[in-house]
Amino acid sequence: MVGGLLTNGCQMAHNTDDSTPEARVRASFARQQMMATLGAHIDEVQKGYCCIHAPILDLARQQHGYGHAALTFAVGDSAAGYAALSLLDEAHEVVTAEMKISLMAPARGARLEAQGRVLRPGKRLLTVQADVYACDGDHKTHIAVLLGTMVAVPIAQS
Amino acid sequence: MVGGLLTNGCQMAHNTDDSTPEARVRASFARQQMMATLGAHIDEVQKGYCCIHAPILDLARQQHGYGHAALTFAVGDSAAGYAALSLLDEAHEVVTAEMKISLMAPARGARLEAQGRVLRPGKRLLTVQADVYACDGDHKTHIAVLLGTMVAVPIAQS
Amino acid sequence: MVGGLLTNGCQMAHNTDDSTPEARVRASFARQQMMATLGAHIDEVQKGYCCIHAPILDLARQQHGYGHAALTFAVGDSAAGYAALSLLDEAHEVVTAEMKISLMAPARGARLEAQGRVLRPGKRLLTVQADVYACDGDHKTHIAVLLGTMVAVPIAQS
Amino acid sequence: MVGGLLTNGCQMAHNTDDSTPEARVRASFARQQMMATLGAHIDEVQKGYCCIHAPILDLARQQHGYGHAALTFAVGDSAAGYAALSLLDEAHEVVTAEMKISLMAPARGARLEAQGRVLRPGKRLLTVQADVYACDGDHKTHIAVLLGTMVAVPIAQS
Repeated sequence: MVGGLLTNGCQMAHNTDDSTPEARVRASFARQQMMATLGAHIDEVQKGYCCIHAPILDLARQQHGYGHAALTFAVGDSAAGYAALSLLDEAHEVVTAEMKISLMAPARGARLEAQGRVLRPGKRLLTVQADVYACDGDHKTHIAVLLGTMVAVPIAQS
Repeated sequence: MVGGLLTNGCQMAHNTDDSTPEARVRASFARQQMMATLGAHIDEVQKGYCCIHAPILDLARQQHGYGHAALTFAVGDSAAGYAALSLLDEAHEVVTAEMKISLMAPARGARLEAQGRVLRPGKRLLTVQADVYACDGDHKTHIAVLLGTMVAVPIAQS
Repeated sequence: MVGGLLTNGCQMAHNTDDSTPEARVRASFARQQMMATLGAHIDEVQKGYCCIHAPILDLARQQHGYGHAALTFAVGDSAAGYAALSLLDEAHEVVTAEMKISLMAPARGARLEAQGRVLRPGKRLLTVQADVYACDGDHKTHIAVLLGTMVAVPIAQS
Repeated sequence: MVGGLLTNGCQMAHNTDDSTPEARVRASFARQQMMATLGAHIDEVQKGYCCIHAPILDLARQQHGYGHAALTFAVGDSAAGYAALSLLDEAHEVVTAEMKISLMAPARGARLEAQGRVLRPGKRLLTVQADVYACDGDHKTHIAVLLGTMVAVPIAQS
């Protein structure tokens, strides 16, 4: 995704500028092979907020044909983590310290939408929440809530 | 996997008999496309215990090249869930009501091992725990603990 | 508290009628000695919502003089539980299966306010959330979020 | 409690020396009014381990006469927190960032016993677990598991 942007020339250059939070979020997301495997993409990034969409692919189903809990976790955890990253400076990244997920309904439908936001923007610890919805046509069902802790860690120099 | 067993003839027939807990666990696991995508397999099933192995495949990595938290969640949640299923009769299956994961170290190495067990074997609610280890050669690191709740639900007649 | 209402005569009779959800919530709350010890009271009950207030008493402080995490947990868990109870019929009560609390700031100030609500009103399992605020004069700080699971259980006949 | 030790003279002086982990744990515990209110005391402290006992007092009961979930939380959270504190140097103390409690059985009996231990002794974040038992005569029931995150914070100079 970032590679594609680089070939788009100047008009997209702001998105490849690692000094903007959104660009850093998108660049980090693009390096996550798991997100590509699941077909996920970032729909929106704001300060303290991130929305991720993912289709419910056959490869991510559980035994009844619904989306696997790990898919719901993956998009919810990522939306929450990138909501946190959007608040950090360019010298830091985030890792998930812990995450609790309450699964309220099966992941039934065509795709998932995860909305992550920061509840407490600490310098080192950020409390985050994500809500995950299953979407089928016009129908949108609230299927999961995640509540967790992100840790800001200095980016290792390479 | 279950399909494969069926062609192996009589000597493996006990594994395809849905009246044994282990066979039901393995049959359910085999229907989870997410587990196949991640390359996971069941190493061991006992009453109230299940051990799952999974390689850390390229397709399941995060932005630093380690296994994604969703991979760790996937194998931990499945090990815990199948530990629960191993205690139920053939008219019931389990779904995850909620799960908390504490991530203690990166998923670094060749493969993950998840050991799930039942802490409280209620009829309808089962409290479960899973410990996930990252394995690299002889080295085994405790990378995550999961604590959650499984619900026993009647299998829908088809 | 319920005892007091009984002496108030007819005009309060609807509050002592166990067939209304609010009356059942208040009657159950009044039987919790822990709530009396902490000085907590119910501020408001609606279908799927409950607000509890509690002073930060000396007896409930931790080592730095702030309210103890167990106080924050107590009011948050109770607000969430009574939000759940408000949705059940008179033959059922609720017990907490599990609860996760994220503590975002110290419980500093004169009193706590906990707002509980039901996210998923299942027949047997209810997913609940509570937000706890510390109040000092006009200042209100969001100090904790709780996310958990309540179980509806039949009331034992006596 | 610490005050009492001070009058015991030299033979107990090591316990009031804030340079030993156990002494710091006991001194911190003694400053928690909530622990005194609940009648709790420290049974044992080792590096990375703490055991707390508490009677189930009338003042800490819920509506059915069992110990309140907040009592179980209080002793479990404290045991886990002091297990963490036992690993820190004298310039740091711990606060609970988040805690998840799975309640497996009612707090029925004469007293509770909480065993806390550190699963991951990070410098700043410590993953902790506690198991809480209800004891009645010779009978001991595992009633709760807690899994959470403690944060090491520098002690404020006064």
